[in-house]
Amino acid sequence: MRLGIVQFNPRVGDIDRNLEETIAYISRARDAGCDLVVFPELSLCGYFPFDLLWRHGFVARMEEAVAEVVKNSSGIGVIVGGISARRIRTGANLTDPSSLVDGGGIDLYNSAFLIHDGRLVGEEQKLHLPTFDVYYEKRYFTPGDGAQVFEFDGETIGINICEDLWVEDGPTDAQASLGAKLVINISASPFFAGKGEIRRNLAARRARENGVTLVYVNRVGGQDEIVYDGGSFVTSPQGRLLFQAPYFKEGLYTFDLDQLSPVPRQQEDRIGLIHAAIILGITDYVKKNGFSHVLVGLSGGIDSALVAALGVEALGPEAVTGVFMPSEITSEESRTDAYETAHRLGIEIIEAPIAGTLDAARAALPAPPTGLAAENLQARIRGTLLMTLANARNSLVLATGNKSEIAVGYNTLYGDTVGAIAPIGDLLKDDVYKLADRLGDLIPPHVKEKPPTAELRPGQQDEDDLPPYQLLNSILRRLVEENASREELIAAGFPAETVDEVLRRYYRSEYKRNQLPLVIKVSPKAFGIGRRFPITHCYQG
Amino acid sequence: MRLGIVQFNPRVGDIDRNLEETIAYISRARDAGCDLVVFPELSLCGYFPFDLLWRHGFVARMEEAVAEVVKNSSGIGVIVGGISARRIRTGANLTDPSSLVDGGGIDLYNSAFLIHDGRLVGEEQKLHLPTFDVYYEKRYFTPGDGAQVFEFDGETIGINICEDLWVEDGPTDAQASLGAKLVINISASPFFAGKGEIRRNLAARRARENGVTLVYVNRVGGQDEIVYDGGSFVTSPQGRLLFQAPYFKEGLYTFDLDQLSPVPRQQEDRIGLIHAAIILGITDYVKKNGFSHVLVGLSGGIDSALVAALGVEALGPEAVTGVFMPSEITSEESRTDAYETAHRLGIEIIEAPIAGTLDAARAALPAPPTGLAAENLQARIRGTLLMTLANARNSLVLATGNKSEIAVGYNTLYGDTVGAIAPIGDLLKDDVYKLADRLGDLIPPHVKEKPPTAELRPGQQDEDDLPPYQLLNSILRRLVEENASREELIAAGFPAETVDEVLRRYYRSEYKRNQLPLVIKVSPKAFGIGRRFPITHCYQG
Repeated sequence: MRLGIVQFNPRVGDIDRNLEETIAYISRARDAGCDLVVFPELSLCGYFPFDLLWRHGFVARMEEAVAEVVKNSSGIGVIVGGISARRIRTGANLTDPSSLVDGGGIDLYNSAFLIHDGRLVGEEQKLHLPTFDVYYEKRYFTPGDGAQVFEFDGETIGINICEDLWVEDGPTDAQASLGAKLVINISASPFFAGKGEIRRNLAARRARENGVTLVYVNRVGGQDEIVYDGGSFVTSPQGRLLFQAPYFKEGLYTFDLDQLSPVPRQQEDRIGLIHAAIILGITDYVKKNGFSHVLVGLSGGIDSALVAALGVEALGPEAVTGVFMPSEITSEESRTDAYETAHRLGIEIIEAPIAGTLDAARAALPAPPTGLAAENLQARIRGTLLMTLANARNSLVLATGNKSEIAVGYNTLYGDTVGAIAPIGDLLKDDVYKLADRLGDLIPPHVKEKPPTAELRPGQQDEDDLPPYQLLNSILRRLVEENASREELIAAGFPAETVDEVLRRYYRSEYKRNQLPLVIKVSPKAFGIGRRFPITHCYQG
Repeated sequence: MRLGIVQFNPRVGDIDRNLEETIAYISRARDAGCDLVVFPELSLCGYFPFDLLWRHGFVARMEEAVAEVVKNSSGIGVIVGGISARRIRTGANLTDPSSLVDGGGIDLYNSAFLIHDGRLVGEEQKLHLPTFDVYYEKRYFTPGDGAQVFEFDGETIGINICEDLWVEDGPTDAQASLGAKLVINISASPFFAGKGEIRRNLAARRARENGVTLVYVNRVGGQDEIVYDGGSFVTSPQGRLLFQAPYFKEGLYTFDLDQLSPVPRQQEDRIGLIHAAIILGITDYVKKNGFSHVLVGLSGGIDSALVAALGVEALGPEAVTGVFMPSEITSEESRTDAYETAHRLGIEIIEAPIAGTLDAARAALPAPPTGLAAENLQARIRGTLLMTLANARNSLVLATGNKSEIAVGYNTLYGDTVGAIAPIGDLLKDDVYKLADRLGDLIPPHVKEKPPTAELRPGQQDEDDLPPYQLLNSILRRLVEENASREELIAAGFPAETVDEVLRRYYRSEYKRNQLPLVIKVSPKAFGIGRRFPITHCYQG
């Protein structure tokens, strides 16, 4: 069987455009002699539409789109992802108006449609609906009735959807026992560093357990805070890798399934993959929202230099403007570093000094602010100037916060937090340095060497206000990414007073994270929709 | 049977304090001669802990708390809400690190514990886990195994939990068929206007269907954006109301179940209930977060006057400061109205003119901003001054946005949107007026009579920038609260060009709503956690 895999980059909600591109890919696959072309999960509406699914008319439009694919499938088999609906829901709460607004009375399924030569052969519904981390599928979908197999081109095949592959005793097992020798999993699997390796190991295990060839088809592209990395692949019944599509790259990949032979597994480059994910995340956010230019507040520090460099890699140097906003505290060193950064990146730099605005703001208040209020005021004036420039130039602001800062609230809400998207908001400070090193000469060596400072009071250094970064990052990795408790952290050897300080800061800064820009997810647990804590709470453990 | 109902106002995550208060209530109920005292859903940890449930140690602490209640139950029956756990999860995804962080391997249940005289009699697990609107229970919980009944004090009773009452063929039916004559539902049911009536009608139906006496026990209090309104009640097997606890008021209510006789249903006062909900929402947010003072930017307009007045009702006049921040565009009329508002409310008013800061900010930029950028700059300087005052005085800012503005993005991110909580963010502009009218003389008549203006350019009026409010609000009610599609709105007689403008504004302002303060929910569909749209999308229907 000649197979085509489409690492598709759909637009969420733009069903017309996705359909048009789907039909074009089908045509290309037909021309390439494919018997079957496979699109990823929810390819027709884009993963993930959230409450758009409940907009009246959305599901009907999806059903029309599937019908259009059927019409355009002459001489070829197609698997597309979409929604199907059953109009009467049993056991639903039809009494609460909120439940009615939220799709009451309609069961929705996350489905794969198998289409062949002008005919809808059948539909496989997702059985296991992930509802942890960034997944919200049980909010919207009903689990399918059960696994089935299809006869296609003389073979018995099973189709299942993303999470269906990840659970034990899932549909792959059932489909194999029904005679499937080929199982196709269509996915929309979010990137985090190391996920590709986990997926391949998982697929190899499922393939071996069931003696099936496993084809894994993943979507690609940035969608708000999530980056889908593609990296589709084929695994033999012995668990050997037979084909590997590239990461982060949309495209049609075709091959004769019977003529594949084992290919070596590449050693994965963690920082390299994170780098590529962030670039795609920036590119797709900016372009899919109809923008072409971004602003970055350049402080002379490592975070803003890195964000500007990533912006340049994503969009080109003409598309990025650095804004240097010195105060009277700003050192000559910071100025030199900011200008040198802009110079190396080849970007425009604008200087907007804040002293005058700061003086005027102090004078406007009944008493000039001191302490933290005075520090925050500087950051907020910078945020205001940056947003004014963004509005005037129809640009987006890239926020420069990193995960260490965000975790402990070492930032100013409406100040350095402003922006549409935070490209390094899921990188702890040590990974910030690692990624900066990866960019080579783009970032001035001095920027990487000097101690980090918020520069909101004379002589300030981050490590005067916070635990040393090495200690802080080690605690945060365990706390945020593994959910380690206070006791577990202390048992792991971290000083109790530091653990308590970090926990206090972590819990108390939830209100800031609630108003943060989108943080591009590159770790198993990022700040954003995959994490949901109350703001008002007293838990300290 | 003598029953005690505790309309409890727990602190989320403060298990020690909730336990201490629980024990005190049990003691009071015992002194009042109660045979059984009933607490609401998740009373020991507070509804709703979200990802705190996955913090290592949280569930163990809950289990200890239940054991403490058992120890303190001599001579009385107790029903408390809490979490129970089963340590091996079947069919879970234990491969993805995100799923492991998110409670992988442990099944959690939302449970009611029946305790009697020093003994844990049994546990009833919630069967129906709401995962629409503001509910996220399937993210955390596994449905219980099935409904059961308990023998207590010579009676067969059924216990079920919140949503269990709302679905057809739910556990009430099963419990009645197992012989229960008394069914107790423990809830944490969020307020929206009209919900109390819906609950009573529902309970009356379930009681009649099954010939049972139904006791409905709801929590009370504000928790972030949600207000729980209490209003616990008892319904006879004939569907008659036998007892009604007050709304929005914590307390122990005791009665002899056998001696109740029908009480009249009160006609509900929609605006009055919304009013009370907002007051409790403000009070609990401010106090539970350890603050005692709030700031409101007073523009002289209706929204800020109303928010200041609500702040005064919640916290007292000494706890509220109005901040008047005129520009050169600000009219004498606005000044008079702002000062008159402060005067009537008896609050401090601070004047912080923005002209100097505005001039300095313009001068700091390469070119003075014009148009929307210039308008937003004014709003952001106001936001900055307000936040500086808040930091300096350890105060919270009450945001003044209303639902009509928020829906169409007629606001400035980091400008008039700043704040911890938006008390009228779920009120369309017509309800803003209705609530202001309810406050009588607290708000100057002129503030209610003049046309609304953002006053960011000379002579500006809202209705020059937006569709007339009456039309806008009618569309928004259908769009936001009923999910009406473009076609449905046009079929309902709204002009197509207005519908398209509103839809465009609605979808395009999602990025602002993503960074908004908490909006106190008073309608079936508020902006906040009950609504989840992608920012990047192209849907227009």
